[in-house]
Amino acid sequence: MYTIGGVSLIAGVPGERGGTPFHGVDPATGAALEPAFHSASAADVEQAVRQAAAAAPDLAARSGAERAALLRAIAGELDAARADFERLVPLETALPPARAGGELGRTIGQLRLFADLVAEGSWVDARIDHADPQRQPLPKPDVRSMRRPLGPVVVFGASNFPLAFSVAGGDTASALAAGCPVIVKAHPAHPATSERAGAAIAAAVARCGFPAGTFSLLFDAGYEVGAALVRHASVCAVAFTGSTAGGRALMDIAAARPRPIPVFAEMGSINPVFVLPAAIAARGAAIAEQLHASVLQGVGQFCTSPGVIVVPAGRDGDTLRDALRERFAASSAAPMLTAGIARKHASGAQHLASRSGVTSLVAPEQQDGTAQPSLFEVEAARFIADADLHEEVFGPTSLVVRVRDAAQTQAVVAALPGQLTATLIADADDASIAEPLVTALSNVAGRVLMNGVPTGVEVCAAMVHGGPYPASSDAQSTSVGTAAIERFARRVCYQNVPDALLPEALKESNPLGIARLVDGARK
Amino acid sequence: MYTIGGVSLIAGVPGERGGTPFHGVDPATGAALEPAFHSASAADVEQAVRQAAAAAPDLAARSGAERAALLRAIAGELDAARADFERLVPLETALPPARAGGELGRTIGQLRLFADLVAEGSWVDARIDHADPQRQPLPKPDVRSMRRPLGPVVVFGASNFPLAFSVAGGDTASALAAGCPVIVKAHPAHPATSERAGAAIAAAVARCGFPAGTFSLLFDAGYEVGAALVRHASVCAVAFTGSTAGGRALMDIAAARPRPIPVFAEMGSINPVFVLPAAIAARGAAIAEQLHASVLQGVGQFCTSPGVIVVPAGRDGDTLRDALRERFAASSAAPMLTAGIARKHASGAQHLASRSGVTSLVAPEQQDGTAQPSLFEVEAARFIADADLHEEVFGPTSLVVRVRDAAQTQAVVAALPGQLTATLIADADDASIAEPLVTALSNVAGRVLMNGVPTGVEVCAAMVHGGPYPASSDAQSTSVGTAAIERFARRVCYQNVPDALLPEALKESNPLGIARLVDGARK
Repeated sequence: MYTIGGVSLIAGVPGERGGTPFHGVDPATGAALEPAFHSASAADVEQAVRQAAAAAPDLAARSGAERAALLRAIAGELDAARADFERLVPLETALPPARAGGELGRTIGQLRLFADLVAEGSWVDARIDHADPQRQPLPKPDVRSMRRPLGPVVVFGASNFPLAFSVAGGDTASALAAGCPVIVKAHPAHPATSERAGAAIAAAVARCGFPAGTFSLLFDAGYEVGAALVRHASVCAVAFTGSTAGGRALMDIAAARPRPIPVFAEMGSINPVFVLPAAIAARGAAIAEQLHASVLQGVGQFCTSPGVIVVPAGRDGDTLRDALRERFAASSAAPMLTAGIARKHASGAQHLASRSGVTSLVAPEQQDGTAQPSLFEVEAARFIADADLHEEVFGPTSLVVRVRDAAQTQAVVAALPGQLTATLIADADDASIAEPLVTALSNVAGRVLMNGVPTGVEVCAAMVHGGPYPASSDAQSTSVGTAAIERFARRVCYQNVPDALLPEALKESNPLGIARLVDGARK
Repeated sequence: MYTIGGVSLIAGVPGERGGTPFHGVDPATGAALEPAFHSASAADVEQAVRQAAAAAPDLAARSGAERAALLRAIAGELDAARADFERLVPLETALPPARAGGELGRTIGQLRLFADLVAEGSWVDARIDHADPQRQPLPKPDVRSMRRPLGPVVVFGASNFPLAFSVAGGDTASALAAGCPVIVKAHPAHPATSERAGAAIAAAVARCGFPAGTFSLLFDAGYEVGAALVRHASVCAVAFTGSTAGGRALMDIAAARPRPIPVFAEMGSINPVFVLPAAIAARGAAIAEQLHASVLQGVGQFCTSPGVIVVPAGRDGDTLRDALRERFAASSAAPMLTAGIARKHASGAQHLASRSGVTSLVAPEQQDGTAQPSLFEVEAARFIADADLHEEVFGPTSLVVRVRDAAQTQAVVAALPGQLTATLIADADDASIAEPLVTALSNVAGRVLMNGVPTGVEVCAAMVHGGPYPASSDAQSTSVGTAAIERFARRVCYQNVPDALLPEALKESNPLGIARLVDGARK
């Protein structure tokens, strides 16, 4: 069994031991867990970035096959540590062991998906425009371009996905796949899980003969280490999953640098669900069951948890509302990831209850460290007017918004800030309302769903997990799915460069056999 | 003949007349040109953005064929105004009539290229992952995604390309192609040219039945209008070509908004040219001729003008340096685009001359409004140590940097800030130096050239005109070539949405016949 050391891991070497200590906590009991973890020192930060910068040219020069081998080796190391994760994750997060196992599977799957992507190689979007020396009035040069890695990437582990969006999660997988060294700032809510995953990556890096600076893992009890990393001149991009406040703070630091860098922050969202009349009439009870389960899944601790349920005024809508109320009232409290998250949930629910026009349908007293599912209701006109109601309450809490008609439903959409997801629950007879709503919601959200729940984000080529601010910092990218690799690359163009000096992906004979755009034709 | 009115054009309607007036100036004589132009009012700004926001859903819903028709109509209107541009451009910019005609051709060509791109339609990067209801442990949903327009885009006209990077230039063409309404802030150095191009666009918008808010053109004597546009809550993105200071100011405004928006700024670059020993020995005189012509082209007023020429120490290098000096010394002064640009060139050249270790090879007194080509020389060690020498001097001025050996050449590369271009002049016998340089330069620049000059940017699919900061604000995108359209779009994902409600690009039968990524296969 792996023994937790409690220190940062800097390019394969343990970091300093002197920094501010902190402990993981068992959220189910509130007990501090051993051992203590030591916050990274300024020297640790400097060393991690320096080693990453030194490793960057090596990584950029590695073939897709080599990067794929590294990603598969990491997946293998994680799989071999399954018993450790099934013990550590529930202990540090109060998530059930089955979730730990499922999330590990997803994490391994993501790594293998990116391995397949870079082994195949077409993701570099190679483009070739051949020369035409005879062209008038000027000869046309030979121009070729492809995506290349940005350089060292700082990844912030998320609280709510201790594996899939943490040390060896999607951001790390996509950044390594692109050819970027990665420095992870571990989330302090699950330090042992983070260390174990970091050790797995470091082992794979060493085994595959990659430079040690390919990966570092830094601990911090507070915000200093993360801020220092984002400020560091040699860091080229940042990936983050968490709150809007946290993401915005990093965006502001990055934008104020002498050389600004991109921050890919996946932040808050209320993920509205629009339930249309015919669907309610046909299957209201089933819809209530489905939505209740989605809001409560993982104690509501998903970025895509439905925080707003838009329901028509009138009798059928009342019935759905009542069915939801009944289910929420019958639900029991569960421990949240951290005591701080539970406190924020309690105050968020309390704030909703305090807003003018908001009715508390289910609003039990919240207990320390846990969340009791809560449900509120408000008329659409109040919802539209009150921006406080558009803010995420992270946890198993939702707000039912009652709309008069299709026009008011469109007004609700127009009032929404950027969203990760927007969902329509509709039957065939709802088509006249559904059609314009799909279009309107696609202007607001990164993902538009029909007749499903937004929780559960499929990892595939077509997925978009992102959306207009404040859902994410960069609506043009995704943090889930293969397109995420594009966040960590930039196009570089080669003009009249002889074949021998071109990267493999751009050589005339296409030695990698990848899909390319040649003189406007896909080949 | 078109009569210049001197007011902004707000969604097809003349703007207010009361704003601060300013005049175009004939740079060849310094004479103010009639008529006066009126700066847009706050009401003009508000109206332009409001109309753009109102037009956005209509544009987003238009087919690629319709957008292509608009772009072709704009190209046609510009072509029909050729006589106006061949008169106005030289008058306002002192650029020769042949350049005006050539640049008009390029502008029309860009519009038609984007028309072809959106008429074909594959640029949306449609991705389809089919459902698998049998998958364990969870059913797989149907997930589809494509690029959709961002919304209203503000474009800042550039001083140095009165047509190709101005009102109807590349940024406007790519934003309209993506389906975004465009608001142009005209560059005050060529207001009549701007108005004429704006009238051409507005005529095409009306003729093609697009909403009038599709396009507005705003004048301003100063910076207020531009800043107000970038701050406006309904603006979704910004495109800019100009100085690093100007671009950074817009980046800072955009980053500080309650909802930050992307700024695609193409800014400064010194575009280093590395001349390798065997090439000098073989054809030093021809290289001197080629580089001299590139530095002086358009009075050095190109973003890609070679501001640094890296030459080996020793006799062959001395010969090349002397040949360059002779050509620069024999060159005559020419009027710059504006008196202000000429003043900045003069002070930039003076600043170079004042730096420790810099020798003035050709440093004539600069006269008001014109630029006299200037050439300086410095040892590589000084160049590496002095960041002031890494800053662009916009105009026909260049700095010869003398390097001892290949290692010092690599040190020069490592010291460079981000560049739009980097050029190698090399013969076959230079291969051992050239090979690592191509790799090193691809980490610094957006475009790496061999045996050519960086001036002249081919408009094609593979072009990258951009580069790491400060060359551009966003190294991940390009401002020239078809990939520029991606800057004004974001991916939207549709999950389990019935075929009838999907956008055409994502329908199962592929009615548009575009290239798509279906279950991982390119189809």
